[in-house]
Amino acid sequence: MPESPAIILHSPQLGENIGAAARVMRNFGMTDLRLVTPRDGWPNPAADTMSAGAFDAGVAVSVYETLQDALEGITWLAAATARLRGMEKRVGDAQDAAEAAHARLGTGKSAIMFGAEKSGLPNDAVAVSDFLMTYPVDVDFKSLNLAQAVCVFCAEWGKLAIGPRADEGDNKAGLGDLAPRDELYRMFEHFEEELERAGYFFPPEKTALMKDNLRAALIRADWTRQEVQTFRGAIKALALGRGKARVIRDD
Amino acid sequence: MPESPAIILHSPQLGENIGAAARVMRNFGMTDLRLVTPRDGWPNPAADTMSAGAFDAGVAVSVYETLQDALEGITWLAAATARLRGMEKRVGDAQDAAEAAHARLGTGKSAIMFGAEKSGLPNDAVAVSDFLMTYPVDVDFKSLNLAQAVCVFCAEWGKLAIGPRADEGDNKAGLGDLAPRDELYRMFEHFEEELERAGYFFPPEKTALMKDNLRAALIRADWTRQEVQTFRGAIKALALGRGKARVIRDD
Repeated sequence: MPESPAIILHSPQLGENIGAAARVMRNFGMTDLRLVTPRDGWPNPAADTMSAGAFDAGVAVSVYETLQDALEGITWLAAATARLRGMEKRVGDAQDAAEAAHARLGTGKSAIMFGAEKSGLPNDAVAVSDFLMTYPVDVDFKSLNLAQAVCVFCAEWGKLAIGPRADEGDNKAGLGDLAPRDELYRMFEHFEEELERAGYFFPPEKTALMKDNLRAALIRADWTRQEVQTFRGAIKALALGRGKARVIRDD
Repeated sequence: MPESPAIILHSPQLGENIGAAARVMRNFGMTDLRLVTPRDGWPNPAADTMSAGAFDAGVAVSVYETLQDALEGITWLAAATARLRGMEKRVGDAQDAAEAAHARLGTGKSAIMFGAEKSGLPNDAVAVSDFLMTYPVDVDFKSLNLAQAVCVFCAEWGKLAIGPRADEGDNKAGLGDLAPRDELYRMFEHFEEELERAGYFFPPEKTALMKDNLRAALIRADWTRQEVQTFRGAIKALALGRGKARVIRDD
């Protein structure tokens, strides 16, 4: 079985949902479950009850303080969201997301991220995603439970990775050595730091939005590690100002 | 919205699962829920709790003494089963079942039937089905919860009845007004011009290669016109140097 995408639950509230999510993951061959600041901590007995033994059967849980930490090693990120939020991202349903992740097998590690039960994902998490995953639900009743939402994706993954449809998929791994998310984060931070110094973020109350917009513009690019280096070199050169870059090219 | 298939739960045990099934049904536009001999009777408060209001929002429950009664008016029946039982039936996954039901719209009423939590469907129920629906789950962990199993089918139905697949979406629905190539070119030229002034392109014989690398990093991004403007603003700010951007933000 190919390496499956990670499932990231961002600030989940109920242990029951974590357990139920693990259960569907394991059914469809997925084992990497990452929790960002689970409300009730971890481990959580309520999760065990609902997992039907999925944790013992291979679903590995890791817990993180920040989303950024959870994204270590992730090269492609889909965000589950019911609202498209006006962000300029690729959009698709669970099948599209599963196909995109499947096509990337061998190029890096994908993740599908889900927000908290009540509130969904915060905007800054959506901003750093490559893909918005949204389900065709009835406009008058958009109310999937968290674990149900995870289930819909996992079932699509199972079709590609386990099911009879598995042999229809082809691995389109034509991309180079993709930059993991943490390198992209450092690149953004570098960019934003220099923009901050240049006085770009003004007025202050719009800073977060401006950062989200910049990250959204740059995040879709399937950056390779080499490209990240190249772009950081460019930022550095611009930040130093006209005529000064040559002397520091070696650092 | 077309008339959706019925969901039949045959001898379900837990009210929670009935409620959760109703919840996913309603999300994906399905409203006909038929219960055959529910263990704990009906109505069931545990079902209400898990339904998230689906019953008030249109999911109609009817209760039957026998499967035969529940099948009144049904012209095509799929049975969810993990084992194929050696029966000579058409077999497929949830997508196949949804497509088959969808293709029958207008010809009669379809139903998808699920068995009890522990035991699944009895053989005599499977025997009267037209189609065996089986999911591509991991052979070492076939353990979907009843409501999760319902969820997998309903999500496939939603794709056909509600989703963009009804009109074959092209995945780019969330992208705004994409920047034409000439705007991208001007953005690159602007970027490179400032990098040139900053002394970034050195040694000279590598300039063309360095430009190609930068463009390659940025070209894949499906930039919108708004994003091009945003990025050009950032370049301008950096190029002007630290602390000077604010005064020119309006130009």
